[in-house]
Amino acid sequence: MTTDSVGDDAGDGDVPVVYDLAPDCTVEDIESDTPYLATVNGIVEYGIFVDLSDSVSGLVHESTLDGTYAVDDELVVEVDNVRDDGDISFEPVELEDYRVEAVDHDYRPTATTALDTNLGEQVHVEGIVTQIKQTGGPTIFQVRDEHGVVPAAAFEAAGVRAYPEVAVDDVVRVTGVVESREDAVQLEVGSLTALEGDDASEVRDRIDDATEEWAEPHDVEPLVEWDAFEKLREDIREVARMLRKTVIEGRPIRVRHHADGDGMCASVPVQRALEGFIAEVHQDPSAPRHLFKRLPSKAPFYEMEDATRDLNFALEDRAKHGQKLPLVLMLDNGSTEEDVPAYRTLAHYDIPIVALDHHHPDPEAVDPLLDAHVNPYLYDEDYRITTGMMCVELARMIYPDLTNDLRHVPAVAGLSDRSKAEAMDDYLELAAAEGYDEDDLQDISEALDYGAHWLRYDSGRHLIDDVLNIGVDDESRHRRLVDVLSTRAEEAVDEQLDAAMSHVEHDPLDNGAHLYTIDVENHAHRFTYPAPGKTTGEIHDRKVEETGDPVITIGYGPDFAVLRSDGVRLDIPQMVTELDEEIVGGGVSGGGHLVVGSIKFVKGRREEVIDSLVEKMAEADLDEDLSSTSPLTE
Amino acid sequence: MTTDSVGDDAGDGDVPVVYDLAPDCTVEDIESDTPYLATVNGIVEYGIFVDLSDSVSGLVHESTLDGTYAVDDELVVEVDNVRDDGDISFEPVELEDYRVEAVDHDYRPTATTALDTNLGEQVHVEGIVTQIKQTGGPTIFQVRDEHGVVPAAAFEAAGVRAYPEVAVDDVVRVTGVVESREDAVQLEVGSLTALEGDDASEVRDRIDDATEEWAEPHDVEPLVEWDAFEKLREDIREVARMLRKTVIEGRPIRVRHHADGDGMCASVPVQRALEGFIAEVHQDPSAPRHLFKRLPSKAPFYEMEDATRDLNFALEDRAKHGQKLPLVLMLDNGSTEEDVPAYRTLAHYDIPIVALDHHHPDPEAVDPLLDAHVNPYLYDEDYRITTGMMCVELARMIYPDLTNDLRHVPAVAGLSDRSKAEAMDDYLELAAAEGYDEDDLQDISEALDYGAHWLRYDSGRHLIDDVLNIGVDDESRHRRLVDVLSTRAEEAVDEQLDAAMSHVEHDPLDNGAHLYTIDVENHAHRFTYPAPGKTTGEIHDRKVEETGDPVITIGYGPDFAVLRSDGVRLDIPQMVTELDEEIVGGGVSGGGHLVVGSIKFVKGRREEVIDSLVEKMAEADLDEDLSSTSPLTE
Amino acid sequence: MTTDSVGDDAGDGDVPVVYDLAPDCTVEDIESDTPYLATVNGIVEYGIFVDLSDSVSGLVHESTLDGTYAVDDELVVEVDNVRDDGDISFEPVELEDYRVEAVDHDYRPTATTALDTNLGEQVHVEGIVTQIKQTGGPTIFQVRDEHGVVPAAAFEAAGVRAYPEVAVDDVVRVTGVVESREDAVQLEVGSLTALEGDDASEVRDRIDDATEEWAEPHDVEPLVEWDAFEKLREDIREVARMLRKTVIEGRPIRVRHHADGDGMCASVPVQRALEGFIAEVHQDPSAPRHLFKRLPSKAPFYEMEDATRDLNFALEDRAKHGQKLPLVLMLDNGSTEEDVPAYRTLAHYDIPIVALDHHHPDPEAVDPLLDAHVNPYLYDEDYRITTGMMCVELARMIYPDLTNDLRHVPAVAGLSDRSKAEAMDDYLELAAAEGYDEDDLQDISEALDYGAHWLRYDSGRHLIDDVLNIGVDDESRHRRLVDVLSTRAEEAVDEQLDAAMSHVEHDPLDNGAHLYTIDVENHAHRFTYPAPGKTTGEIHDRKVEETGDPVITIGYGPDFAVLRSDGVRLDIPQMVTELDEEIVGGGVSGGGHLVVGSIKFVKGRREEVIDSLVEKMAEADLDEDLSSTSPLTE
Repeated sequence: MTTDSVGDDAGDGDVPVVYDLAPDCTVEDIESDTPYLATVNGIVEYGIFVDLSDSVSGLVHESTLDGTYAVDDELVVEVDNVRDDGDISFEPVELEDYRVEAVDHDYRPTATTALDTNLGEQVHVEGIVTQIKQTGGPTIFQVRDEHGVVPAAAFEAAGVRAYPEVAVDDVVRVTGVVESREDAVQLEVGSLTALEGDDASEVRDRIDDATEEWAEPHDVEPLVEWDAFEKLREDIREVARMLRKTVIEGRPIRVRHHADGDGMCASVPVQRALEGFIAEVHQDPSAPRHLFKRLPSKAPFYEMEDATRDLNFALEDRAKHGQKLPLVLMLDNGSTEEDVPAYRTLAHYDIPIVALDHHHPDPEAVDPLLDAHVNPYLYDEDYRITTGMMCVELARMIYPDLTNDLRHVPAVAGLSDRSKAEAMDDYLELAAAEGYDEDDLQDISEALDYGAHWLRYDSGRHLIDDVLNIGVDDESRHRRLVDVLSTRAEEAVDEQLDAAMSHVEHDPLDNGAHLYTIDVENHAHRFTYPAPGKTTGEIHDRKVEETGDPVITIGYGPDFAVLRSDGVRLDIPQMVTELDEEIVGGGVSGGGHLVVGSIKFVKGRREEVIDSLVEKMAEADLDEDLSSTSPLTE
Repeated sequence: MTTDSVGDDAGDGDVPVVYDLAPDCTVEDIESDTPYLATVNGIVEYGIFVDLSDSVSGLVHESTLDGTYAVDDELVVEVDNVRDDGDISFEPVELEDYRVEAVDHDYRPTATTALDTNLGEQVHVEGIVTQIKQTGGPTIFQVRDEHGVVPAAAFEAAGVRAYPEVAVDDVVRVTGVVESREDAVQLEVGSLTALEGDDASEVRDRIDDATEEWAEPHDVEPLVEWDAFEKLREDIREVARMLRKTVIEGRPIRVRHHADGDGMCASVPVQRALEGFIAEVHQDPSAPRHLFKRLPSKAPFYEMEDATRDLNFALEDRAKHGQKLPLVLMLDNGSTEEDVPAYRTLAHYDIPIVALDHHHPDPEAVDPLLDAHVNPYLYDEDYRITTGMMCVELARMIYPDLTNDLRHVPAVAGLSDRSKAEAMDDYLELAAAEGYDEDDLQDISEALDYGAHWLRYDSGRHLIDDVLNIGVDDESRHRRLVDVLSTRAEEAVDEQLDAAMSHVEHDPLDNGAHLYTIDVENHAHRFTYPAPGKTTGEIHDRKVEETGDPVITIGYGPDFAVLRSDGVRLDIPQMVTELDEEIVGGGVSGGGHLVVGSIKFVKGRREEVIDSLVEKMAEADLDEDLSSTSPLTE
Repeated sequence: MTTDSVGDDAGDGDVPVVYDLAPDCTVEDIESDTPYLATVNGIVEYGIFVDLSDSVSGLVHESTLDGTYAVDDELVVEVDNVRDDGDISFEPVELEDYRVEAVDHDYRPTATTALDTNLGEQVHVEGIVTQIKQTGGPTIFQVRDEHGVVPAAAFEAAGVRAYPEVAVDDVVRVTGVVESREDAVQLEVGSLTALEGDDASEVRDRIDDATEEWAEPHDVEPLVEWDAFEKLREDIREVARMLRKTVIEGRPIRVRHHADGDGMCASVPVQRALEGFIAEVHQDPSAPRHLFKRLPSKAPFYEMEDATRDLNFALEDRAKHGQKLPLVLMLDNGSTEEDVPAYRTLAHYDIPIVALDHHHPDPEAVDPLLDAHVNPYLYDEDYRITTGMMCVELARMIYPDLTNDLRHVPAVAGLSDRSKAEAMDDYLELAAAEGYDEDDLQDISEALDYGAHWLRYDSGRHLIDDVLNIGVDDESRHRRLVDVLSTRAEEAVDEQLDAAMSHVEHDPLDNGAHLYTIDVENHAHRFTYPAPGKTTGEIHDRKVEETGDPVITIGYGPDFAVLRSDGVRLDIPQMVTELDEEIVGGGVSGGGHLVVGSIKFVKGRREEVIDSLVEKMAEADLDEDLSSTSPLTE
């Protein structure tokens, strides 16, 4: 019961107070020994029935009554008796004079997280609507307060939208009974009202404050001390905050990641962290399945086809399940100009995009379209801080319980992308303490690459978890699987190189570097592992080892070329820009890292493009310190 | 209660009538103050129990009885009292003489559409079985009467087919209790009997009559007045009737449409109309999902792969859900000889096929295999009446409420296929009145084309609805999406033409037309937007504009060529027939419209095929009136 | 009730026995007129309440009591009365002296197959856990005893794993109430305990014995008498036993089969047989869907991509549904070295692999990785015993009821692979008796091939069933479908040969055979039916017929060649080995049958590979008896 002034200390002279219940008051708002204003609504032989509010009414027995009453007469009563079955009887209170005080219904809301202690009881919940799903039966509103989220089922008629005036993001007050459903508690809605004005603001502010607080990432010490990484740390923390907030607000998250070793080492920890946090926030074991999706991308950028499909699925989920549109999280992917068309397609929908990448970025092109962009080049660092290294820290900020599962992951990420980061030694040591020596980690990296190749567009969740040994409790299975896949990967590489090596051509360049070229369309197996990029990389590695000199390797197909280099100061993105301008009708595009990458062109202009490319490479400066320029993959 | 003569006016002399209830009579068949024949079935201290039928029985209290009775004795009784719990007591009626009249159970069926007012009550429904689905629990019969369809659940044992003697299309009488299920009402079957002979015919006739009446399309005025279109109108009306009847009879509909702008403008309105009508007929919000499917086809004909899959899915749905096999509706697709193998595969199943197309038809080949075929060429009109224009009218005949959503669609369809129809001005005006100027419509057309390209085999329902702005309430989102997609489409075309234009070759033909050829395999980007057809079209358009003369453009790949022409009287289908005969081992096939189309051939015969094709083109007459010959796409 | 010595014949002197119930005893353990030790747990006005065990308690009325009792006092009682509502009253038994005998709860288990006669009752089941599925609500344990399998639902909290200490393969005792679920009976778990030591061994032994017995294949006479086949019969029987045992133990089965005629004739009967047996064992109509999957493979070996996907799906099913990992059954596939990488990938998981194949095997390579391997070459027989012939017998051993559906299938299998087996005449006769003449069977074979081509990776269950006429009751639909598909297949072959025949090149070889070569990339339609293998085969057949001489035909593409031969003693697997060694950078691999097969190589080495291959073929011996060397497909 909420009144401006409560019974005993009623001010305003000596006149006693009689309380007038608002129509929405319930039994919970009345108290014993307190006089209420009542209205007669029925007369029977043994007494009169009175209403105190829409839902509070009862009998005044004729034995307690003086005089006669007509329907709609008012009188003052107090509670006589409440029976086990909830029936209430009242008795009249005789007062010469009194003043009336209004009583509002007590809408003190119950926390969504406390509902399981109120099974079968009527409660009030105040919150923001995060999803409205029309089923064939009731309409399900997901309502979020400062503690969590609860589904509220309102039934108008089978398949008919209840409370059509209420929309996602409205602030609502729900009165309903707490029920236990197969997979969680649920409110059976009695009434659901959109709040407005101050009422709404107050609730929204309360929830926003709580959200901000809850979204705050955990304060975790980085796994290794590393000055270069410190520069990015605060921005990664900001991404952790955005992702936690996204989860709290009930918006789905869709991860698009490069389907290679580093991309897996980046996305799998983030998946684990977000799934854990989603389950915690939504108290529903099926929520992670509905609110998170990880999708590998074959190309090192966001292809239009993927973006179109993502948008189409998102619109479908909104139409079918009333879900918000998702946040798209690009991992080991998303920093370059090639991502722009896809970003633009999503831009006018309510789809925030966040990119964490370590490919050479084009911030001028992508930043206007991104809600956050973390890339070591933006802090004068480079690819050596791999996305996997960043994302292990990101995952820990979101859900620190994972830490023990992740200590070996940055080392795998680093080896996958041949990172020559100063911190690699520390990462290797960290992994060693968990029982992984460098060969083990290298095998995991090869196994990831091989598995990802054959899984194609499937995230291969369980297989990849086993390979990476994250959240899996069978160490020996992990070891056997990695052994099988990495051994087979090596065999496949050997078979490929058996076919290809005799066809590799060698030219010494003017700048002193060796150039090796291979026609991967004609002199390597197609449509198998290793694909052209990996094949070129393996040839390159052998040549680097053979010569000990600066080496550039080009693997070309009908309309593409893969570029690898060691000891040469290339700037592939810059070369692509120049080639596109210089070769009319060449249709040159592409990019990647500075010194490794891939380009596409029009089939009929291959010779011209490659010749011109080689010319540019012959002019590049050599690098004194071979150690800083060569990651393996694009 | 149905008797030949009712109580009061019993004829046949003065002897009073006593009614003898048939065994299947229920309480609903008995009336007060009416004598019934009863049989003693039990004797207790306080009276005797009597049966009036299998389910009507009750007590005759000993206080009302004269004499003694043995089990199986007959006596005449009338109702004494019916208690709240349904128990009936009778009292004996003393009659010197009487004659017996049989009473049949009153099977007056309840309309399927009136069941929701009979929740919890026992009713009878008479109808035709349209689907029999065996679940893990009960067997679900969909029963259709002259008003609608209702599911009837019969339980024999878990997963066991109830009433195995009843098949789809049988006429049945169902007695059951009306229940409310999550998504609709349902009958809990007490008994289900296949009717035969006259009983069946009578019901079937009644339903057939109602079906004919219900299937009658709405009488809508065409959106624009247009003589050419009037010729087709009655046949489109006939298709509307067939589709409505198909829906009423519970047969699923599977639309296969060309995945381009006109195909979308045709299929999306029809989808909306049929989904609306299905929901209306089946009173089940999930029915449209089960009974309708829209599938884009990349090729401009019904590929064997698609037909095989469609058949396989249909057989699976029949096996799993007891559904009828579907009707296949071909839109902007299906008129040519290339469709014949697919049609033949479906022909011997119960799968009606209907085609609405405006590609140059081969009625001799396809008509024997089609249940209906509408194509402007069959009425001496041509491609200028686009499928989208026809289908907007078709959709309105099926479900006229859509009209306001569709006024701009024919204009988009016309622009997509470069229709030079006389009605285009009226269509543009109609769209203008809805706020779309010609640039807007052109942008929608480009956006449709671009979206369809990346969606590939996905119908992309929500994305396409947003692009076409059908049934969507967010005008500004529609505009932004169209802007993004059409802008990106234009950029992509520009990038493609940047690569390709310098490789276009020019030859003046003997007939005065310019011939432009481009090797799209070697001088254009592959596997991206725009694909070879669109690339060729865009080059063609630029050349037409540049020269102002008759122009033919050929874009060729290893084993295909795309043909575009303006101002030349080509007959591509005829050329294909000739080439196939003349070039041994050329394997030439293809077709499309008269003056635009595409052909396929064997890779090793490309030069010969193209040379021969150019020769034929050089002989073609020029067209005085450029305006009537050139649609954009095949 | 189980006691060491029962009431009447209680030994040990004349002292009467009083029984002391163990805490887990239930009402079912007590008998009338038998004295039990009871403990007072409550005192009320009208008597005392006593406990006999945790769940057995009741009132002793004060009228029957002498003296007074305090809580926790012991007394001896016997049953006075059991009321309808289950309440029990006791009366005291006065005994001067007695001895106490312990009574254990009677855990006599109920057979899982007898549960449906115990609906609503509490029962005990003892068995092995075969699956543990965590739902959003309860945890579902599949428990298998010597009779069958029953699901047991245990609820700890929504989505929380109940009895986390229990794992798959544990022996458990379940006490629960039998309930009827939508699709079967289910136990509502009261308690579930993992048994250990002797208790567990006893149950496990009992179940193992029953499993062995149940797994025993049926004793069926082969459809035709055939000495060559007799050699394999016992090993096929062993495979039948393994598969039946796999079903009984609740392990899923995943069939990978060659997607051609013989592969279909092999896999479809086995599918039918296993589905029938699964339904019988698991008493759940949805079990076959969860425990069996048939997947066609385009390549004639187990591709890494397929194996990776199979493993990923298996891990997902284990994680989502708690299923065991599957047994993989390779049919018409799986005998060669090319299968090894895939086998190795699965080897370290608990995934048994069984292969039935008739391609030329490499037992040294595959046998160490297989749990069973049946191939006619292992018994000095050859490809003429087709996989379809073997699998029809295998299917009959598993589920003999199918026999009548399968009599025509071996003949189709034989024709599909051009088997010249001596038994072919008998098989044709057998089919003739069912109404299929040789043309019919040939048409079925063509239709299968054509259907499989377009279905690609879809098993096309219902379509293929209709084509093969297995388990389908519409003979005329079968005939029409076969007619349509085989006619269209022939047309497509004709179209292909129209394009190709004029490009076939002829060279006489030194050994007297004719060599025909065709460039199928440049002189045949691509990406359509017939594919290169079938195209080459059809050309070959025409040439064999034309010449009547020994013929070798090679159809080559950019990086592959298909080989067909008649009348020449080739050993293709041997040639592949030699080519791979001799041609550096050729990357040659492949295989198939001895005299028909296909090879792959690196595009840039095609000329060298084909030349070298032709040289080897020119040296091969001719075969006097043309009839024994030529199956159609690889």
